[in-house]
Amino acid sequence: MTQHLILHEYSMSGNCYKVRLTAALVGKPIERREYDILTGETRTADFIDNVNSNGRIPVLQVGDRFIPESNAACYYVAEGSQLVPTDPFEHAGMLRWMFWEQYSHEPNIATLRFWMRWLGPDKLSDLQRLQMPTKRTAGNAALKLMDDHLKEREWLVGNALSLADICLFAYTHLADDADFDLGRYPEVAAWVERIKAYPRYIPLDA
Amino acid sequence: MTQHLILHEYSMSGNCYKVRLTAALVGKPIERREYDILTGETRTADFIDNVNSNGRIPVLQVGDRFIPESNAACYYVAEGSQLVPTDPFEHAGMLRWMFWEQYSHEPNIATLRFWMRWLGPDKLSDLQRLQMPTKRTAGNAALKLMDDHLKEREWLVGNALSLADICLFAYTHLADDADFDLGRYPEVAAWVERIKAYPRYIPLDA
Repeated sequence: MTQHLILHEYSMSGNCYKVRLTAALVGKPIERREYDILTGETRTADFIDNVNSNGRIPVLQVGDRFIPESNAACYYVAEGSQLVPTDPFEHAGMLRWMFWEQYSHEPNIATLRFWMRWLGPDKLSDLQRLQMPTKRTAGNAALKLMDDHLKEREWLVGNALSLADICLFAYTHLADDADFDLGRYPEVAAWVERIKAYPRYIPLDA
Repeated sequence: MTQHLILHEYSMSGNCYKVRLTAALVGKPIERREYDILTGETRTADFIDNVNSNGRIPVLQVGDRFIPESNAACYYVAEGSQLVPTDPFEHAGMLRWMFWEQYSHEPNIATLRFWMRWLGPDKLSDLQRLQMPTKRTAGNAALKLMDDHLKEREWLVGNALSLADICLFAYTHLADDADFDLGRYPEVAAWVERIKAYPRYIPLDA
């Protein structure tokens, strides 16, 4: 059964792009609805009551039901495709990188990108400014961990592209927006190029 | 095939307890190896080279292979059991709560618990101290979101206990360690009791 998928999103968000890229790679059409997060369009009563009580995008709509959290939405879109390994150990390995992305990568690299390029240095609170060095260190540690892991393999899990690669690609390939230098992480830089060359790949601004 | 499972852990960590609780609920034995995170036993060269390059626990060992990230380890242990829904929408709903736990719940409630009860107020850095009010607000927002969601249902996803409940139970039922008052969240408090009453439940200190 083909289901109509709607992505509630802010298109420049890497978390939203993950879901579009997943849909493109598995060949599923997806309708897009744009919200301006900078003017609070995901914090309205209508959005909170009807789309996501958490007030955040992306949210994947499937019929009249909703899936918040980008990596869960990617999983729903990709389930049954080659992007989700069926071997239980590889499947858990894929989830390992997806949870790690949300805990150790996104809060550092994506948050610095948002603070520096969207909010802007002048708009940051004192607390945000004080957190920047910690996030810079943790973001570089995350890129180093990926670089070490990719020394011995082409993809994060097993021998094929999986959702782990897609979910980590989103903000990794945008890391220079937050002044991270991918030149320091040659294995990561090569992996980014492998994903960009993959059949059906679409860029962020597609 | 029955596989020998080894949990590399710090037993008072809620993230490690999740994996033990999952194993207990599905009736799988699990060998336990304790590390003292306060004295850096997971940051040794041996641990980083042989168990987890991220220097963190828990790590689930399956034969000679390793699965870091608590929620990925829980998934591996529970795969094929009733704790993992087979319906794709419910499965994505389960993952939604598990990703949300790592992004919006654990970094606030578990981190405050660690800072207040393990590091201790005297050992906190200025930056940690400054982050406490933000984490307090975000932790209460997370508990409120769960409370609202549980007003209309007994379990977070579908009509049965799933990994979403287990993964969120771990630090929610310990939230008073971080001075969160579950009395303000009666639906959450009732859900905690439902889990404690579940067949094969084991407490943190079992």
